[in-house]
Order: sequence, then C-alpha cells, then structure tokens
Amino acid sequence: MNRFIIAPDSFKGTMSSKQICEIIKERISCHYSSAQVNIVPIADGGEGSVDCFLSAVGGKLIKCESVNPLFEKMESFYGLINDGKTAIIEMASCAGLPLIEDRKNPLASTTYGVGLLVKDALSKGAKEIILGLGGSATNDFGCGFACALGVRFYDKDGNDFVPVGGTLCNIEKIDVTKVDSCVKKTKFTIMCDVKNPVYGENGAAKVYAPQKGATAEQVELLDKGLRHVCEIVSKNLGKDVSNVVGGGAAGAMAGGVVAFFSASIGMGIEVVLDTVGFDDMLENADVVFTGEGRLDSQSLQGKVIQGIVNRAKKKSVPVIAVVGGVQGDISSLYEQGVNSVFTINQLPEDLSISKNKSEENLRKTVDNILRILKI
Amino acid sequence: MNRFIIAPDSFKGTMSSKQICEIIKERISCHYSSAQVNIVPIADGGEGSVDCFLSAVGGKLIKCESVNPLFEKMESFYGLINDGKTAIIEMASCAGLPLIEDRKNPLASTTYGVGLLVKDALSKGAKEIILGLGGSATNDFGCGFACALGVRFYDKDGNDFVPVGGTLCNIEKIDVTKVDSCVKKTKFTIMCDVKNPVYGENGAAKVYAPQKGATAEQVELLDKGLRHVCEIVSKNLGKDVSNVVGGGAAGAMAGGVVAFFSASIGMGIEVVLDTVGFDDMLENADVVFTGEGRLDSQSLQGKVIQGIVNRAKKKSVPVIAVVGGVQGDISSLYEQGVNSVFTINQLPEDLSISKNKSEENLRKTVDNILRILKI
Repeated sequence: MNRFIIAPDSFKGTMSSKQICEIIKERISCHYSSAQVNIVPIADGGEGSVDCFLSAVGGKLIKCESVNPLFEKMESFYGLINDGKTAIIEMASCAGLPLIEDRKNPLASTTYGVGLLVKDALSKGAKEIILGLGGSATNDFGCGFACALGVRFYDKDGNDFVPVGGTLCNIEKIDVTKVDSCVKKTKFTIMCDVKNPVYGENGAAKVYAPQKGATAEQVELLDKGLRHVCEIVSKNLGKDVSNVVGGGAAGAMAGGVVAFFSASIGMGIEVVLDTVGFDDMLENADVVFTGEGRLDSQSLQGKVIQGIVNRAKKKSVPVIAVVGGVQGDISSLYEQGVNSVFTINQLPEDLSISKNKSEENLRKTVDNILRILKI
Repeated sequence: MNRFIIAPDSFKGTMSSKQICEIIKERISCHYSSAQVNIVPIADGGEGSVDCFLSAVGGKLIKCESVNPLFEKMESFYGLINDGKTAIIEMASCAGLPLIEDRKNPLASTTYGVGLLVKDALSKGAKEIILGLGGSATNDFGCGFACALGVRFYDKDGNDFVPVGGTLCNIEKIDVTKVDSCVKKTKFTIMCDVKNPVYGENGAAKVYAPQKGATAEQVELLDKGLRHVCEIVSKNLGKDVSNVVGGGAAGAMAGGVVAFFSASIGMGIEVVLDTVGFDDMLENADVVFTGEGRLDSQSLQGKVIQGIVNRAKKKSVPVIAVVGGVQGDISSLYEQGVNSVFTINQLPEDLSISKNKSEENLRKTVDNILRILKI
C-alpha cells in the first residue's frame, strides 16, 4: 500500500478540507515514508474554494482589482489552473455576505465584481470558468456579473443600467449582441449544491433573501423581480430558465449565468472531481481517504463521500471515510461501495468540548486506520 | 483472516466483557461466515468472574449451599472447569457487599461461606482453586474461610472460635494441623489487582473498610486486629505476610489465604490467560480483539490490553483494541505491540447520552474494523 488519495469535505465549524488533507497526509508520511499522496480538498463553491483547487492541482493565485457587493473598489482574487486555461472563481470573494456584514442589502447589492474577475481571467487567456457559488450577499440574478461581461439591460425609456435586486422589475429589454466573442466562446461551469428554482415559493428570494437582510415586503419585491427578468429572458433570448434546477442559487445568479452565457450547473463534488482529473488519479491509487463533518441518514449529507465512492468503485479502489459523527443507518453508503467509516471522537464528550480537539482527534483516528492497514 | 480471539475487559458501567464478546463475535460471523472465534471475556475476580471463565472454556456451574457474610444460609455457586480439576470461585458470591447492602458491618462479617464453596469443590474432585477477590463485605483476614477448611483459632482461654473483623485481636493461637491433607495439597491461585498490604496506612482496613461501613474508630480496631493476626501467623506458622503485595485485598483475605494455605497471588489478567490456555489459542489466531472502558495515560488502566499484547506479540499475532475512550498519550501501548486502538463514540456526545448507545456504538465500530481488514 503506497499510493493514497485524500479527498475530504470540510468538517463544518471545525476543520477546512485543506487542513484535513494536511493532517492525513502527515500521518501517511509517518507510516509510509515513500508513499505517493494526492490531496484533493473538496470545495463546495463557497469561501476557500479557490484555495482547494490550487492545493489539489497546483496553479496560480491571481490578485485583481474588483468591486464589492456595494460597487466599492476592493482587491479580490481567483485561481488559474490547467496551464492558465481554466479559472476558478469563488463569487464570495467579491460578492460574499461577510464583505458587507453590517450593511446587508439584497435590493442594492451586485455581482458586478465577479464579472470583473472573469474579464481579467479571460484577458490572461482562460478559456473555461469554474464559478463557485455560495455565501452571496446578492439577489440580482447575476445581472451585475452579466453587465461586467457586456450584456446590456435597458429600462422602459431605453436607458441602459446595471440592475440590482431592487430594480430587476425595471428591465424591459436585454441585449447580448455586444458581448465579446471571446466571452461567448467561454465555457462556464457553475458549482452549486442547492436545487432551488429562480423564483416562487422555493425560489432564491423567498428561501435565501431573509438571511441577506430582506424584510418580508422586500422578499416579495425581489421575487417579483426575478419572475419578471425570467419573462424578459424568455422573450428576448428565447431561453426559459424559470425551472432550471439550482437556478435560484446565489441570489439566482446561477439562473442568470445560464440565461446569458454558455453555462452548465454541476454538483460541487462532481465539478471538483472532473476538474482535478480524479479518475486519472484513481488509476494508480491503493486507497482513498474521504470524510465529512457528519453523516446522517435523515439528511442530504454524505454527498461528498458518495461522489468519491461512485468513481472509486468503478476503478476498484477502496474508500475509507473519516467523519465527525454518524447518526442513524448508513448501510446504503456501504452498499454504494464505501469500505469503512470511522468517527474521530476519542472520548464521549459533547461537541462543545470535542470541537477544540478535532485536529488531534482526526490525527489519532487516521493513525490507527493506517496502523490497521499494515496488518 | 479466519481465526479470531476476542478478549476484552468490561466497559465499566456500560457493558460486561461477556456482552462485548458476544457483540464482536456476532459481527465477525457476519463478515467471515466460516471464522473460528475464541471468546475470552476477561474477569477481574469480582462479580461475574465465574461466568467469564465458563464462557471462555466451558465447564459446569455448580449451585451449592453456603452462608452469606452474616452467617445466614444462602444458595451460592461456583464453576468447575478443566474436566472438574479446577474450581473458579468468586468470593463476592457469598461474601459480597451487595448481599448485605443495608446491614454492612465489617466487624461482624465473614468469609466463612467462601470456604464452604471450596470444601464442596474439593469434595467433587477439584485439585486447584482460582479465587476471585473483589467486592467483599469483610475484613476478617479470611479467618472465616480458613475455619471452614479446618484451620483452628483459639482465644486466650483456649476456646476455639470463628474470628471476624472485630475479634481478630482475640486470636492467641492458630492451629493448621487439623487441616485435611486434601486441602493442604490444593493449589490456591488468588486473582487480585490491588497492591495494598494487610495493614497500615495503605492496608485493608484504612483504605477499604470505610466503604464497607466502618467508622473511623472501627477502622483503627480493624487495622489493629490485622496487625495482631499477622504477628500470631508469624509466631505460630513461621510466615511473614505483613508485606505481601496485595495481601490487603478483600479485607486482607488474600493475606490470610497465603498465610494458611499453599497459595499465590496473581494479576487478574494473567490468571485468566493462564487458566484459559491463551498461549495455545494464539498458536492458531490471525488477530486478537481486546478492549477496555477507558485508556488514560495518567492511570493504571490499560492492564488488560497490556496483558493481552504481551502474549500476542510473542506469537506475532496482531492486536486490535476497541475502547470507550482514549485520554492523553498512549504511544507506549503501540510500543508494546498494540497494532491499533479504536474508540466507539459515533457522535460527539457526553457519556450521559452515549452510555445508552454503547452496544450499538461498539457494533458499528467493530463492523468498520472488520470491513477495513478485508481491504
């Protein structure tokens, strides 16, 4: 046993996926001094996603002028991988809620800055954009993003403007003919794990706008705006994005990007695994370590482990999961091909205590797994 | 991998060693349908010890008339193993504190009933007695036990009597000449994990009599009695038991048995492993499962695991420990040869919650260990 892949999700609230990778890697090096180890910290599209990709496949972190959700200048960043052909952008880097925590305003906030990052990446030669959605402060259908990339929005008087959540209703016409051909040829891949549609009861505004600061009345206005822009999209661009699964992600930015550009929405885990060439990594692997914060038979959790095992099983590579906790029956994971699942809790202690020991607990657990693999 | 030994300690307060054996065995049968499994639930000499031995090597449970710590008739029991040649007696079965919980009295309580069990076993042909000490209600130096087997104690008037804690000081002479030759030839092996001497600051009375109901004044009397009887033993029998390590166990019954009979004191784990033929079992084993409630670098715990691994290592059989909790640095256990240590906590939860799930948590943990062994 000499070739390992480490591909865990973060343990929310305790350890990032990159931290987890580093701890597991250190333990492997200790027990198997000549081991080859590939690390793939799994990103969910939110904060830290760029860092995850760069850790997995190498590449360059690019710093870049942009604007924050309130159109104020800021320095932001993105990643270039795959010899500069692919840019990794996390929208949270310039449209994230923490950037304006004390001035939350989903009626006025914009994704314009995210578009500026894409523009910079294309100017450096990127042909493909991976767009991580998550943690957004916005509800603008990605109109700001689209403006930065040449899409034009006109009001009833024929004046063009940059729509924000509160002014989506003012859009009368959308024109994509001025979009640069280089942008048109670009392939956008959206990382998104939610299934909400653009508008309606389960739409972006009703489900997510309250946590971005919207009152009940504002939620109605935002939802109406999203419904309206979908109608204009349908009329002007001939696309119906009202029912796109996940179109409501990130203040419906997902729906907008699909409407305006050549874009597809993918599950975060699948986008990561495709992008880092996970299937090729598996060709030479003896075992894969994965993990999540908590496995719960009642929830949608377990997505990362499932994504990993679906691929590993096809190549007959064993998968060991290390997790913060297991609740309920997880036998379906074994049926899917997970070999073994270990929890890290070294003592019967409440999370309020054990969360301060999570690194140490993970280290010990992995240590014992590696020891048993040597038997 | 087809031949397993399961030899765990109990998880104090949650599961008996026998329960643990059964859970692990069930899981092994599930994953390795043709597996040969030896179970050795580890006894500590206290309540349940007879059951442990019978589970490990088979044999007969013998029910037998005896007396409780207050000389009242009761039905008690012991085990016969090794084709009836060896009797397993747990002194708690007729001299245990729970038998007289509401009438605790270390000045008046006796080990006489334990002697009756030995007598019965010898009458059935037993040649060797394993004597489990633990949980005693007594402080009689085993004088009651000795009386039942023919030792005579005389007071200053030359009258013989059965000494109890409160009358040890009245012993003027001890006569072992009336002891039956069959008793004299019997080999007594005492299971005892404490190191207290018969009397003094760390002696039986000062350390253990308070929990048996003695007041501070009574403790002094009991301690004085123990010191006194040691002097008589020295004078009449030519043996000095005042410094025997562990002589203070079970109200100094250990010291008495060594004084009056052909007896040796052994660590519980070693007595069990010798008695069940553990070294022979190892010859054909692929892996040993062991375990304890808690491993703590600061405590004396870990004795069972250490005892197991010392023997397994000599035969190069891997040892996997399953435990309720690990605290601090246990690297010395690995150095001694333990391959891997897994904790059973499936969630970060306080013991007050998790103790109600300990069987389920053990089952899941062992399941995952067996799954990983198949990789």
